[in-house]
Amino acid sequence: MANEMELVSVGFDADELLALLDCKQYSEFMHRVDELNPVDVAEFLMDLPEERRPYVFRLLKKDTAAEIFAELDGDIQAQLITGMTDREARVMLDELYVDDAVDMLSEIPSNVVKRLLQAATPETRAELNRFLSYPEGSAGSVMTAEFIELRRAMTRDEAVATIRRTGMDKETIYVCYVTDAHRRLEGIVHLNDLLFAESGALLEDLMDTNIVSAMTHDDRESVAATISKYDLLALPVVDKEGRLVGIVTVDDAIDVLVEEANEDIEKMAAMSPTDKPYLRTSVFETFKKRIPWLLLLMLSATFTGAIITHYEAALGHWIILTAFMPMLMGTGGNAGSQSSIAIIRALSLGEIELGDVWRVLFKEFRVSLWCGVAMGVATFVKVLLIDLRLDFSQLLVAIVVSVSLVLTVILAKVIGTVLPILAKRVGLDPAVMASPFITTIVDALSLMLYFEVASFSLGI
Amino acid sequence: MANEMELVSVGFDADELLALLDCKQYSEFMHRVDELNPVDVAEFLMDLPEERRPYVFRLLKKDTAAEIFAELDGDIQAQLITGMTDREARVMLDELYVDDAVDMLSEIPSNVVKRLLQAATPETRAELNRFLSYPEGSAGSVMTAEFIELRRAMTRDEAVATIRRTGMDKETIYVCYVTDAHRRLEGIVHLNDLLFAESGALLEDLMDTNIVSAMTHDDRESVAATISKYDLLALPVVDKEGRLVGIVTVDDAIDVLVEEANEDIEKMAAMSPTDKPYLRTSVFETFKKRIPWLLLLMLSATFTGAIITHYEAALGHWIILTAFMPMLMGTGGNAGSQSSIAIIRALSLGEIELGDVWRVLFKEFRVSLWCGVAMGVATFVKVLLIDLRLDFSQLLVAIVVSVSLVLTVILAKVIGTVLPILAKRVGLDPAVMASPFITTIVDALSLMLYFEVASFSLGI
Repeated sequence: MANEMELVSVGFDADELLALLDCKQYSEFMHRVDELNPVDVAEFLMDLPEERRPYVFRLLKKDTAAEIFAELDGDIQAQLITGMTDREARVMLDELYVDDAVDMLSEIPSNVVKRLLQAATPETRAELNRFLSYPEGSAGSVMTAEFIELRRAMTRDEAVATIRRTGMDKETIYVCYVTDAHRRLEGIVHLNDLLFAESGALLEDLMDTNIVSAMTHDDRESVAATISKYDLLALPVVDKEGRLVGIVTVDDAIDVLVEEANEDIEKMAAMSPTDKPYLRTSVFETFKKRIPWLLLLMLSATFTGAIITHYEAALGHWIILTAFMPMLMGTGGNAGSQSSIAIIRALSLGEIELGDVWRVLFKEFRVSLWCGVAMGVATFVKVLLIDLRLDFSQLLVAIVVSVSLVLTVILAKVIGTVLPILAKRVGLDPAVMASPFITTIVDALSLMLYFEVASFSLGI
Repeated sequence: MANEMELVSVGFDADELLALLDCKQYSEFMHRVDELNPVDVAEFLMDLPEERRPYVFRLLKKDTAAEIFAELDGDIQAQLITGMTDREARVMLDELYVDDAVDMLSEIPSNVVKRLLQAATPETRAELNRFLSYPEGSAGSVMTAEFIELRRAMTRDEAVATIRRTGMDKETIYVCYVTDAHRRLEGIVHLNDLLFAESGALLEDLMDTNIVSAMTHDDRESVAATISKYDLLALPVVDKEGRLVGIVTVDDAIDVLVEEANEDIEKMAAMSPTDKPYLRTSVFETFKKRIPWLLLLMLSATFTGAIITHYEAALGHWIILTAFMPMLMGTGGNAGSQSSIAIIRALSLGEIELGDVWRVLFKEFRVSLWCGVAMGVATFVKVLLIDLRLDFSQLLVAIVVSVSLVLTVILAKVIGTVLPILAKRVGLDPAVMASPFITTIVDALSLMLYFEVASFSLGI
């Protein structure tokens, strides 16, 4: 995983671009920018001081400007578009691919969205409104409308001619879609099949009818997982009537997979998810993402405290029991996290489904038996050899600690398995049942177990 | 993130395939399989009982067989290839793309690898040996050798003719590479540019010279991140002399990104990484991935126990202090995890580099001040209102707990920031510094802080 320097395009030199701007050599600046990758130019713009950005952005050519705009962070897009005239905004909305426009509109303040939609041409406005109506996180919300449609009666040469005529502003021309008069999807043709075919071959013989497709309301993560599973360049999206309404391309699938993995990871670490890069998030934003979880978990630790207070008398007699509390709670938390995170990831990658619940539970139970017994034996030996002097009462403590540990590991793993699956069943995101939450519950339960085992065995 | 049923190809029906096999209707079986997506057929094969697989696999046609083979899990590939004759193995190695063959060879026992390499044709053997020599996790280890090479002096029509002649067994024909007589990379031509160009246009005018490329020894994760960043279909890989030796395609980049995210997540949850799906991993394998970490963390919790034992006398007098231990350790652990995981992900996504260490540390320090003070105030109020009766000695305990908490949060966040960066600097994977490790260290330190603050304030 160690990753070195990020690979960048040859010929990109931010200092040179800055120097050109400082010397007001604008035509040379535009010439250089035109040759560069829009991703690099977008990063250059984002690193500029806020007040310089609108001016520099106006220097860009119309089509380059849209490509670069699509790569900017949401707050910077908002800054730039707020400063545009209605005419400039209209041109921008027309030039952007519809998925990029929808991304942008869903991140800027609603009064700006309203103004922009009013400024747009009626056709663009209708299309944007349609796309904006798909629920967040659905296939509809990440698809694009710019794809190539062909008919089954076309010959190979007619198809190539159509692609050459209409393909310029499509997101991909490598996968084309064969539809009927009602826009229902009938087959898929890859450009390489067209290239290798005879000129008179009919599309209906060339097309692949073994189609993988998604519905507009399918989850965007399962769409991305499907693109990854079948190594697709794009996945067609159809509405309830089976009409082709959009496609999700592989580059958007990667973004979805990376974003969802990050969200899972952040929830596992008790942070609210963010899609802004680390160094572009302010201290206060970072604070706001973290403090609610810290407070919540602090409050829930009150229960653990209450349990200790409840057993205060017993603890007073056997103060040695206190020394093993961190180890018990820690092991319980770790054992629970292992299970919950294995389950959360497996659910999220589609490796298991709700129907597998008994199979999964049985497997985790057997794993927990192995782990519990191994840990119990190891702890017994360790406690006797390292922590205690060898006499009868100490032997009892060692037994109490080991037995509690075995029970804690089993309990923690079962809870770690059940909670994410339950969350999923009631429609919550399983990832909220990750380490911090599980740890808090397991902490409380493991202490109760410990003190009960201790009371019983030590007669207190 | 909730994902429903996985999307599958239309027309795939495992029960129908099984029925055909059971009725020995082999030619109909082969006919059906030929129409299906190799990914689906591979899943069907993997779900078959072990003893049926070799027989069913032999039914497949040569070229379909290779495509399906590439999609199988490593242990099943090993099972099948071990049972092949030398002639069958040679054909299989020739039909596989070199990256799939290398993947397979790096997962099977070394005596089988040796036998396979001896069975291969001399050319295949030489190529495989070259690819096998790239270090694990490098660009060289995930690239493929099947790409299209063109020359700058070619016209558009000559280029298309070359692609039609040689493109059939390439991994992609959508991105072509222009090289000189020494195979040094000079430019990149996309098939759509060729399609839209005039027939006599020269490649040197059509090609993009603003190239993003990787070296054979670059980390595969930074290669995947670059493909994602620039939305590429493939990234060229060059050797030290600048010669083009392979390409990494976007589908392999997705696999790398998902695998690396899973590895990070598993390490964060104290498990050894696995690349096998959850339900295909046996109970004992799962146990082996989890138990070493549980044992290690259990042993390291001994220090925490030793600290408590050290302060045993003080605890005996102020047994109420024990009740706040879980909350303090829990909050410290959570605060530390938040920072460490934010840093680990940012390092892994290339959002920060080692040079940013002071900037990152300063940011996390400010975040920790905000979080620490907010948590301290909240805890003070909560302890007074909920946990304790209001008298002077209790007020002192509330102050001790709150002050310890402020210090713990700050300390935890600083440690959570420093450790992953240190790990990276000395060449370790930052992800090993995730929650369980940080929690153990922070547990011990927060208790020491707590007891020291308590001894000082309560005069014990």
